[in-house]
Amino acid sequence: MATGLAYGVKAIRPFASLDECRAMKSEGYFIAGERNGDKVPGFDLGNSPFDYMDPLLKDKSIAVTTTNGTVAIEKSQEASQIVIGCFLNISAVAEYLKEQENDALILCAGWKGKVNMEDSLFAGALVEKLQNDFANECDAPLLVQAAYQDMSHNLLALVQSSSHAKRLHKLNIYEDIEYCLKMDLYNIVPVLKDGEIVLLQETTTP
Amino acid sequence: MATGLAYGVKAIRPFASLDECRAMKSEGYFIAGERNGDKVPGFDLGNSPFDYMDPLLKDKSIAVTTTNGTVAIEKSQEASQIVIGCFLNISAVAEYLKEQENDALILCAGWKGKVNMEDSLFAGALVEKLQNDFANECDAPLLVQAAYQDMSHNLLALVQSSSHAKRLHKLNIYEDIEYCLKMDLYNIVPVLKDGEIVLLQETTTP
Repeated sequence: MATGLAYGVKAIRPFASLDECRAMKSEGYFIAGERNGDKVPGFDLGNSPFDYMDPLLKDKSIAVTTTNGTVAIEKSQEASQIVIGCFLNISAVAEYLKEQENDALILCAGWKGKVNMEDSLFAGALVEKLQNDFANECDAPLLVQAAYQDMSHNLLALVQSSSHAKRLHKLNIYEDIEYCLKMDLYNIVPVLKDGEIVLLQETTTP
Repeated sequence: MATGLAYGVKAIRPFASLDECRAMKSEGYFIAGERNGDKVPGFDLGNSPFDYMDPLLKDKSIAVTTTNGTVAIEKSQEASQIVIGCFLNISAVAEYLKEQENDALILCAGWKGKVNMEDSLFAGALVEKLQNDFANECDAPLLVQAAYQDMSHNLLALVQSSSHAKRLHKLNIYEDIEYCLKMDLYNIVPVLKDGEIVLLQETTTP
């Protein structure tokens, strides 16, 4: 999502179900579908960030459904704001959160209801950036921060050895992971607004 | 629980509710009750391990209810076996788990449904001992292991700074924590049998 918006995608509309997402094709959306790490047959895109760099997508809208991420967004509907963060835009998100008056809940999408390493390490990295501006409500932030500190010198190898990477035998998964661990490629803050994820701030065009 | 059994308590019967636990007094049990870190008025013991060293308790049975631990035991009723582990008996529990043919789920009791540091670090230490004998079902074991590796050089200071220790302003909490972080004081494996926690193996009497 961050990559698409950084490359000029106008808006990304998340759906929890494949059917709802597929139906958006007739409304002029590109459709992106991922289940179990694979692109769903009949969809225009999967969830590799490289799919979202296609110049055809510039100024277009994408409807997207993924195994975990769009479910997490749907579960967050009662939040006063939903911000999309990843290593690619971590500092922009951290700075934005510091400016807000609300508490922040870092919701890891995880993998089918279970903890996964890549989301937890991102959460730990974000906690590290926020630690002087927020008080912890429980010990989960301290825990993921400790894990991040332990692993930050070698994130790539560690995420590649995680259960998620092993589970996904798809082509180019290691390129996807390597890319997704890059810090601060984009100075963007994607937020959910009227059901669509759009950029809050000016994007740094690649 | 581990300390009591190591000091000769015959059996510990866990209850999730205060009322059920209190009712055991008339059946000849000592009763232990903790809520929000404090000993419940009218109960014989709280949850400080030092309470359980009293020679009066030798060969006696205790009914116990705590904010989180006994709830976790009740939630685990469908397991084929329930084993009680802590730093005080970690190696004995690890060796016992390695001998079993079943999978192992390390259930952290936590704090009122939330993650806490002391249970997570214990889980991480246990994962470290089991890592060559079990495959991970998700990344949670890797995560707590990383946190443990990051913090193991200074467990005491870190647990004392956790939200749990700060929340508990009770007397002697730091002595309790220091004691509970000692590794392998007891070579015992407490298991739930017919609704009571008893020792599976010979205890090493202190």
